Amino acid sequence: MPDRIDSMLDFLVLADRFKSVERRAYVADGSRRENSAEHSWHMALCGLLLAEDIGFDVDLGRALSMILVHDLVEIYAGDAFAYDAKARAEAVEKEEQAARRLFGSLPPDLGRRLEQLWREFEAHETPEARLAYACDRLQGFLQVYISGGKSWAEAMVTREMTRKRTAPARETDPFIDGLIERIYARIEKAGFWNDAGIAVGAGRGVTPRLSDA
Amino acid sequence: MPDRIDSMLDFLVLADRFKSVERRAYVADGSRRENSAEHSWHMALCGLLLAEDIGFDVDLGRALSMILVHDLVEIYAGDAFAYDAKARAEAVEKEEQAARRLFGSLPPDLGRRLEQLWREFEAHETPEARLAYACDRLQGFLQVYISGGKSWAEAMVTREMTRKRTAPARETDPFIDGLIERIYARIEKAGFWNDAGIAVGAGRGVTPRLSDA
Repeated sequence: MPDRIDSMLDFLVLADRFKSVERRAYVADGSRRENSAEHSWHMALCGLLLAEDIGFDVDLGRALSMILVHDLVEIYAGDAFAYDAKARAEAVEKEEQAARRLFGSLPPDLGRRLEQLWREFEAHETPEARLAYACDRLQGFLQVYISGGKSWAEAMVTREMTRKRTAPARETDPFIDGLIERIYARIEKAGFWNDAGIAVGAGRGVTPRLSDA
Repeated sequence: MPDRIDSMLDFLVLADRFKSVERRAYVADGSRRENSAEHSWHMALCGLLLAEDIGFDVDLGRALSMILVHDLVEIYAGDAFAYDAKARAEAVEKEEQAARRLFGSLPPDLGRRLEQLWREFEAHETPEARLAYACDRLQGFLQVYISGGKSWAEAMVTREMTRKRTAPARETDPFIDGLIERIYARIEKAGFWNDAGIAVGAGRGVTPRLSDA
């Protein structure tokens, strides 16, 4: 039997694989897709920046912890594309199995703690989970904006589909709603959608404010 | 003048570039180097796992916040290799300039908050900063172990150099010391160093415990 230190160490070694779980959206220059470790970091930064502006109190340590581990089951289950209903339906059972395997490999107290954080995130009912969930939708949306809509154009994602996808985040808090609507305003200006409301992408360089970047 | 939402949004867009800041250590399969966003996420996971086992109390929200932003100035300043003394000496002034530019772009209250977190990390005196700093050294060391010592072999890093580099983390807390010594035991067993104590690398597959992975 591995002891506490061996179990934690093996878990931290395994966690490296999270950096190879590919998501759909690209990084800014379109050269590669973002991975789940990057997504989680970026999403945690969103949580950190938003925590003081939202209209409800959160325990930041719990919210950030939740964000850091919310997708960890993807190490075994993979990422299901936001606009692939079949993949998302199948993901539920795959992620349950992955959770048993993943959290079961930790010392029991730590395994329980991480599993609870993951389940709390999935239920998105507590203040911390509501913030985390909103940040998930926000970062996913933001990343497509950052990368010029390339992944939406590939999948012909419509304006309407993204409206449904961002709704839970917009409804979570007026400040987050304002942030997402600002992204929509920029996206509309950049012409991400054609007249039929289907994504065509705006290519690189949708970040005109960062001209010195 | 950009308003609060525009400033935050521009900052979150800019943050994507953190995913393109290359570090020295590789991911497990050696196919590419790790980037700073992945490092920060992995390091935050270390902090989250260690928080209950270390012998001092930390405010987890502050510790994780610090970890998430501790290297953010690299967006402008780049990463300085741990074993390149010249690059590290030059990094101090470059990072100060980067901090002014980076944190100065945020709404003042948020800019101050992030800058304070960064300075607190750099001083590594408070309990949160001590944990964060130890996790930085731990993750850096762990990542080289995970990737079979490839980046050490490239730079002919000696056992002695790594001992100096990990000392601050080992001295922070006995539990962290135990974790790092366990990694050393595995590394010695895998033969990362030659008889002169110079890194030769152990190739891929240093994670025998994860044979089903």
